Amino acid sequence: MSPCRIAVIGLGVITLKRHLPVIAASPDFEIVAGANRRPVETSMCGRQYRDYRDMLASEPSIEAIAICTPPDVRCRIALDVIAAGKHVLLEKPPFSTLGEFRQVRLAAERAGVTLLGAWHSQFSVAVERAREILADQQVAKLRMIWREDVTVSHPGQDWIWKVGGFGVFDFGINGFSILTRILPDPLVVRAATLRIPNRSQTPIAAEMDFAGLQGDDRLHAEMDWRSTTVERTIEIVTRGGQRLRTTNAPQHLEVDGAVVVDGENLEYPLIYDRFAEMIARGESQLDELPLAVVADAYLIGRTLTDDTII
Amino acid sequence: MSPCRIAVIGLGVITLKRHLPVIAASPDFEIVAGANRRPVETSMCGRQYRDYRDMLASEPSIEAIAICTPPDVRCRIALDVIAAGKHVLLEKPPFSTLGEFRQVRLAAERAGVTLLGAWHSQFSVAVERAREILADQQVAKLRMIWREDVTVSHPGQDWIWKVGGFGVFDFGINGFSILTRILPDPLVVRAATLRIPNRSQTPIAAEMDFAGLQGDDRLHAEMDWRSTTVERTIEIVTRGGQRLRTTNAPQHLEVDGAVVVDGENLEYPLIYDRFAEMIARGESQLDELPLAVVADAYLIGRTLTDDTII
Repeated sequence: MSPCRIAVIGLGVITLKRHLPVIAASPDFEIVAGANRRPVETSMCGRQYRDYRDMLASEPSIEAIAICTPPDVRCRIALDVIAAGKHVLLEKPPFSTLGEFRQVRLAAERAGVTLLGAWHSQFSVAVERAREILADQQVAKLRMIWREDVTVSHPGQDWIWKVGGFGVFDFGINGFSILTRILPDPLVVRAATLRIPNRSQTPIAAEMDFAGLQGDDRLHAEMDWRSTTVERTIEIVTRGGQRLRTTNAPQHLEVDGAVVVDGENLEYPLIYDRFAEMIARGESQLDELPLAVVADAYLIGRTLTDDTII
Repeated sequence: MSPCRIAVIGLGVITLKRHLPVIAASPDFEIVAGANRRPVETSMCGRQYRDYRDMLASEPSIEAIAICTPPDVRCRIALDVIAAGKHVLLEKPPFSTLGEFRQVRLAAERAGVTLLGAWHSQFSVAVERAREILADQQVAKLRMIWREDVTVSHPGQDWIWKVGGFGVFDFGINGFSILTRILPDPLVVRAATLRIPNRSQTPIAAEMDFAGLQGDDRLHAEMDWRSTTVERTIEIVTRGGQRLRTTNAPQHLEVDGAVVVDGENLEYPLIYDRFAEMIARGESQLDELPLAVVADAYLIGRTLTDDTII
């Protein structure tokens, strides 16, 4: 089979660092073009367009498109791309609202194209291993700690503070995409606190408690963008006393103190392998559960003002 | 068949005014008992308990339970009631979070009991008629106006202003339960403004725009608890120019100016008819779409401070 002719919409940091090198190395895909409002210095994306609609009109041979823009415009773009009959890969979080998941899923079904919502943290050997271990267990304790310095990770990126930008949830939702994948029971938010800076519409930090199966279970998550250190840790203790710990999540997994997975980051190669496989089989995969956890935090979350200057 | 032995948890205004009279008049149900934290003066609910767990323990003959408490405690109660093997009817909104929908649905499936989420506004002849009319149409314009005076409709009810109480969405969600039932396409929130009073965690008013299929479509909703008048109106114009209007929603429906349905409120009798039917057939119905619309409003909504004193 000849490689699938792919284009990319949105040429930001993640596209340049993750998507384009993986596409270049993949035998399944061949890059044709890229679209971005402002021209970007790169030789990796083929012909560049400022308007993705011009690209769709000028490059009819494109078969698939990766949409890597900020989430608030992805739905409109996805609908246009699907209407043009292209397969779609969506960066995470695929959309800003649950309604957009339903709308785009329906459009893709009707058009018969493949749709892959690429929650990249789910594409990891450690996550798959944790899922297998927990499949027939009950969780008694859960602790998710997600911390980094937003001025380092998102310098000058205003969209994260705007409505639909999710704030610290754009970071924490990776943790939720792991938890909703590996936990044997639904992840149910019981309480949440969102800390929102004065000039922001989105939180810079959040804490959440989840429902346990028994009264003394403790399931807790903390996300903080005010940290000077980087941490992405999930710790789980099962009812039977087994301890799982993934740090630098999700590459590294320990069970009862012994390292069982410690690999390099192969998330994006695995995403594109899966995308190729799904196109070949005519399948789609678009999981809304990680966003539903954020939605629940907003639905019952207490909001507090945070005095961080953004 | 002998009538189904039913109990009620939560003896508030809606229980006394809607549920108990309908149960008393239904040939399918027989009231056994009721539970409420504070004793309530009524002869309609059979034996009264302060703790629903005492009721479950003392009245093993109960077959079904209507849960009519405020939404924030309904999930815990529903799980206990399902664990006791009873069928469950849930007042709207069934739960405060999307996670609770998943958790309770799973528990009911495993226990083999019937679960009915009674979005009462969906149980109306006018709504069913509107759904039939719109089934093969496209919506070009939508206007939902939901207004009432909260000091009249919810006097002294503090829970509506607390986290998980939903504020004006507890009122507006009835409109969303109609829209998600009658519209032929997903209801996708594009923008929202939530007006939150100073001492509240929930909005007293909200405005929302929904995605249209074409650029010039206008789909808009307004909910306002600061009004001195009562209005519950939905107006829809189809692409073909047909006009639907339901006022005092959802009892009254006009199509192109002609009244096509103008009935009395039979929502609660129809809910209990359906509950009996579903128990007999071993079916369940628990629709989360109206809450997903509220969740989306929170996810991308702009919050403003409102100066109403609550």
